[in-house]
Amino acid sequence: MKIRIDGKVSDIRAVWCEEGVVRMLDQRILPHRVEVLGFRDHHRVAEAIKDMTVRGAPAIGVAAAYGMMLAANNDEDLQKAAKELKGTRPTAHDLFFAVDHMLSRIREGDDPTEAAEEYAETIVERCRLIGEHGERLIKDGDKIMTHCNAGALATVDWGTALAPIRAAWRNGKEIFVYVSETRPRLQGMKLTAFELLNEGIPHAIIPDGASGHFLREGVDMVIVGADRIAANGDFANKIGTFEKAVLAKELDVPFYTAAPLSTFDLGIKRGEDIPIEYRGEEEVTVVDGVRIAPQGCKALNPGFDVTPAKYLSGIITESGILKPEDIAKRLRGAKL
Amino acid sequence: MKIRIDGKVSDIRAVWCEEGVVRMLDQRILPHRVEVLGFRDHHRVAEAIKDMTVRGAPAIGVAAAYGMMLAANNDEDLQKAAKELKGTRPTAHDLFFAVDHMLSRIREGDDPTEAAEEYAETIVERCRLIGEHGERLIKDGDKIMTHCNAGALATVDWGTALAPIRAAWRNGKEIFVYVSETRPRLQGMKLTAFELLNEGIPHAIIPDGASGHFLREGVDMVIVGADRIAANGDFANKIGTFEKAVLAKELDVPFYTAAPLSTFDLGIKRGEDIPIEYRGEEEVTVVDGVRIAPQGCKALNPGFDVTPAKYLSGIITESGILKPEDIAKRLRGAKL
Repeated sequence: MKIRIDGKVSDIRAVWCEEGVVRMLDQRILPHRVEVLGFRDHHRVAEAIKDMTVRGAPAIGVAAAYGMMLAANNDEDLQKAAKELKGTRPTAHDLFFAVDHMLSRIREGDDPTEAAEEYAETIVERCRLIGEHGERLIKDGDKIMTHCNAGALATVDWGTALAPIRAAWRNGKEIFVYVSETRPRLQGMKLTAFELLNEGIPHAIIPDGASGHFLREGVDMVIVGADRIAANGDFANKIGTFEKAVLAKELDVPFYTAAPLSTFDLGIKRGEDIPIEYRGEEEVTVVDGVRIAPQGCKALNPGFDVTPAKYLSGIITESGILKPEDIAKRLRGAKL
Repeated sequence: MKIRIDGKVSDIRAVWCEEGVVRMLDQRILPHRVEVLGFRDHHRVAEAIKDMTVRGAPAIGVAAAYGMMLAANNDEDLQKAAKELKGTRPTAHDLFFAVDHMLSRIREGDDPTEAAEEYAETIVERCRLIGEHGERLIKDGDKIMTHCNAGALATVDWGTALAPIRAAWRNGKEIFVYVSETRPRLQGMKLTAFELLNEGIPHAIIPDGASGHFLREGVDMVIVGADRIAANGDFANKIGTFEKAVLAKELDVPFYTAAPLSTFDLGIKRGEDIPIEYRGEEEVTVVDGVRIAPQGCKALNPGFDVTPAKYLSGIITESGILKPEDIAKRLRGAKL
């Protein structure tokens, strides 16, 4: 992704390795300050995962792989390092997968640096391919709406929902992006708008409740990410996604989700079976440290919602664009 | 409305008159502090309208009527007082109407205090009747969703969308209210939740984007206010209203707007003819004085959206519940 640092535009990743040092953008201070940190041991990488210097499941996975690389290169006890890295965040599937993958690659005698770089490349390549496939859906002059941050910051580079948008722009298509701010944590306003600003892509932040108004005024497509996709194509994503899907259908606007095949969970039959995480109400009642709600008022804060497959025009993956009804056929036996 | 002041619950209005003194809640410091101010001359009332101590078109109208009462009782030049009061806010129809109404009542020899009190009563009675009619739609145990603040703070007492909710609660119906926070200015979170908290009505604030999720989980009806209703029933209201209307239709949840007959503008044929006001982008990018958006990012801030009549189950007015198709017939020749 393009990022302006000290007045100069660089093309960097959210996490990378440079002459044996693991580097990452400090995502805790974005979007107001841009700073690159460097770590030489896996303890510091573990801390960075824990304190959310790096965030987003794919980016956390890559950071952990690089953490294992540092542990191996520093001749540390790999089992202890694996335990330390896995203990940082409780629910990120990519974290556990990346650490175990590195353990087995190193056990097989592979070079730790090569193994970590290959892992990072795999993650980035998936997103690049999502961009390549999704870009074909975008016409010159299109207005696109997105929600939350399914961008390079979370996925190391390119992003998922943002990959087709980045690719279209880099291929010279004139596009405009409506960025739904994504209350309560405002990842649309804080992260997606930041990525688009740095990439130079024309965009505007809108309140979540204004999505319907702009969809009616003339949006050509909606692209969002996905946290988990069930076997029938129903999918969970950041709260507010379902609303946009219903409005897009009502107003005849194509609606896509973009996600790597690893997001499919064929063990889950339908959306109703995806559990909804409720998060703390302070995310709603307090904004950037300031209490907004009246003292004594309660808030409800579901972290995501489920969008039924019937609202989906297609799922943009690294192996092409799937229709919900083709998932079972296309994914049977696929290596996820 | 019930308001807790210094630990004691009082039943007060947003603006009222007490022994010749005009009193009002200081709405600039709500919901964090509750303070009642008192004014003895019309200059102070004009200031209070201008600096938004009192807000909401009907409440501004009543404040202005009381302002004219003070001017008359203090033997001031009434034409000068009228000009001063009318010069406070540029667009509030109620403000001009109330001042002119008082001028002609006083010219006809009516007692200024009686005339002002009658004006206030008319405004409050309309809302009380909206509550009475709308309350019949609410069943014991209902879950109701609302948006923005169409409450007593804006309308002197009862409110419009909040009137049926207040009436149902006072009649002993167990209800629960989902309060959509209403970005960007958060009037749902700051004002509606405050009114419900003070009234003791069970409720929860939700992010605007969570409306669809909760509408699917089980909401019995949606009631919102209206800024302007066209002859065909299309209506303008706070941004985010249209989304709830579409979602409610899709999920088979009845959707009502509540407004006095004075909100109908039969000179406007359809929603497309209602101009949409765009407001400053800082309302989106800055929350309670804190800049949230990345420096350099633009935002779009339409103040309201238009909901087509086809999504409306009915319009709750002081003279009963209208179907959109009955507006022309019922309002022809009605005194608005």
